[in-house]
Amino acid sequence: MNIHGQHYRNVWLHADGRSIEVIDQTKLPHQFEIARLDTLDAVAHAIRTMVVRGAPLIGVVAAYGLAIGLEADPSNEALRRAAAALRATRPTAVNLHWTMDLCERTLMAVPPGERYAAAMALAQRLADEDVALNARIGENGLAIIAGLAERRPSARPLTIATHCNAGWLGTVDWGTALAPIYRAHDAGIAVHVMVDETRPRLQGAALTAFELGQHGVPHTIIADGACGHMMRQGKVDLCIVGCDRVAANGDTANKIGTYMQALAAADNGLPFYVALPSRTVDLSLASGDLIEIEERGEDEVLEVTGRLPSGERGSVLVAAPGSRAFNPAFDVTPARLITGYITEIGVLRADELHRLGDVKAAA
Amino acid sequence: MNIHGQHYRNVWLHADGRSIEVIDQTKLPHQFEIARLDTLDAVAHAIRTMVVRGAPLIGVVAAYGLAIGLEADPSNEALRRAAAALRATRPTAVNLHWTMDLCERTLMAVPPGERYAAAMALAQRLADEDVALNARIGENGLAIIAGLAERRPSARPLTIATHCNAGWLGTVDWGTALAPIYRAHDAGIAVHVMVDETRPRLQGAALTAFELGQHGVPHTIIADGACGHMMRQGKVDLCIVGCDRVAANGDTANKIGTYMQALAAADNGLPFYVALPSRTVDLSLASGDLIEIEERGEDEVLEVTGRLPSGERGSVLVAAPGSRAFNPAFDVTPARLITGYITEIGVLRADELHRLGDVKAAA
Repeated sequence: MNIHGQHYRNVWLHADGRSIEVIDQTKLPHQFEIARLDTLDAVAHAIRTMVVRGAPLIGVVAAYGLAIGLEADPSNEALRRAAAALRATRPTAVNLHWTMDLCERTLMAVPPGERYAAAMALAQRLADEDVALNARIGENGLAIIAGLAERRPSARPLTIATHCNAGWLGTVDWGTALAPIYRAHDAGIAVHVMVDETRPRLQGAALTAFELGQHGVPHTIIADGACGHMMRQGKVDLCIVGCDRVAANGDTANKIGTYMQALAAADNGLPFYVALPSRTVDLSLASGDLIEIEERGEDEVLEVTGRLPSGERGSVLVAAPGSRAFNPAFDVTPARLITGYITEIGVLRADELHRLGDVKAAA
Repeated sequence: MNIHGQHYRNVWLHADGRSIEVIDQTKLPHQFEIARLDTLDAVAHAIRTMVVRGAPLIGVVAAYGLAIGLEADPSNEALRRAAAALRATRPTAVNLHWTMDLCERTLMAVPPGERYAAAMALAQRLADEDVALNARIGENGLAIIAGLAERRPSARPLTIATHCNAGWLGTVDWGTALAPIYRAHDAGIAVHVMVDETRPRLQGAALTAFELGQHGVPHTIIADGACGHMMRQGKVDLCIVGCDRVAANGDTANKIGTYMQALAAADNGLPFYVALPSRTVDLSLASGDLIEIEERGEDEVLEVTGRLPSGERGSVLVAAPGSRAFNPAFDVTPARLITGYITEIGVLRADELHRLGDVKAAA
């Protein structure tokens, strides 16, 4: 997708052929900075501190990180240690864990001397596959948007609420939840996106609004608590969100606040879709109750970071001094609140998610 | 209630006997500043810019503002103009409108020469009544908390979620939603408050956390979107919120985000109470659909204000430059989601709210 009119993916090989470059998402939307990552530790740190974030993207970046680590030490022990270190960076996103399992299994079968090259090739393949999967998610979701746009009586644009960032910044390209929206916009369907700002880290206000703006898609930022009100006022037509892990029964872990948006959609009779590649499903978990929820530091709630009037980046303490906060990064939306799952093989119901197991196993 | 160990009301007559002083709530929690208001315009400005906020408090402050205006010009015309100007400051909170109606009616019956003194006495009476009403709300709500605390099996404190600030900072003293919590805490019941930070203006993180901290009540700040997750995790036992206007059928306008907290409470089988004095009911409106919802500036969403590391007050832009926001200040929670209404005459069901009409008329 485009930033300032130039096409970017979210991770690419540096010209040296042995390190990667990523867009530093902690600096967006106010600064566009490329970060070069040339060690395993640098990659793990970038994932942990959310320089890169989004379930599909961190899976691919971790695959590159593993490859970079293997150049320094291609032994079995180093491979195992590197995969474990990368898995430990974020517990909830399953793509990361699935990717590390795949890489570890594949590369163990390769002689150490050939591992680095094989790992780099595998990471490259995973990146390309992510782009292709998301393009298909976009197509499959486009059918939903086109159908609703055709049937609706009002002249106002079809308005789609979303939470957090499941756009191209959270993937290698295209995005998951936003891919159908880009496709619809490009196809000339009048769409408008109602963007939850998504406290505490404000990925909605900072990242989703940024990438929609770069692509020219009309959108409005609202406080997370305002989403239900907008729905009650008849100003939202459907919801599409991304996800970090979907259990076998369809329960979906996504950014904190998703569950409440889904409740509001259900209360207002609005369809609520989750967009995901097959790699985000975890059929080993019977239900969402078993998904581990990452807890992040309380400072993300107590303080807010943005651009100071001087143009510099800064933080303000917003909470009463001495008060403490609790910061679960994800919540679980029960399958009963989800209308359907927009995947690369079509729009599925919860009881059809098992089909993604075969797709995933074939990868 | 106490700030730094000293007792304060939220509005009081200055020693000069003709101006008032209030706590500047836009500076809290980082600075404790008293603002002196000595003209009608200054009072109207303080209400509009939320130097004072909270439905009960702005009603009383407006009554003082009217009195201050009458000292300069006690004519019928000036009385009417002053009441209209004060009503126009905030459209949703009904206490303000009820108070202006009461003051206008009462003072029209008084000869202009005696109006200023009568208006000051009326404002003083309304302030004292607010304190007494809230104390009774505290007692009536205490019974709910004590009952739940007794029946619950777990050893952890009874945990009460709240949204925005309906504490003593939103009233002359005691608060509405927080009054029962202060009473319970003072009675030795182990309570913990789960405080929604309440974007966009963060009254939960800034004001509710501040006043709970000053009173020594244990509490945790969470992002608004986290409230549903905390409930699903079994970490919340009940909700108590305040309100700005309650329609005859029990539909309740309160700070944006309240509706979504109520949905989450209902989905988790938790009681959801609204605390209010009779003055906050508007029996002239059949349902909440008729309540006018104030829309505030988009900057409250696009920017966040707090304390800079230097100790100074500052704002950071958090949204993508060029992106716009929409900022409805309130939403309406339908009566079907509300367990009961904690009032000065007891805990009522929606179909009993008409009883508040008589209480209000007798005021």
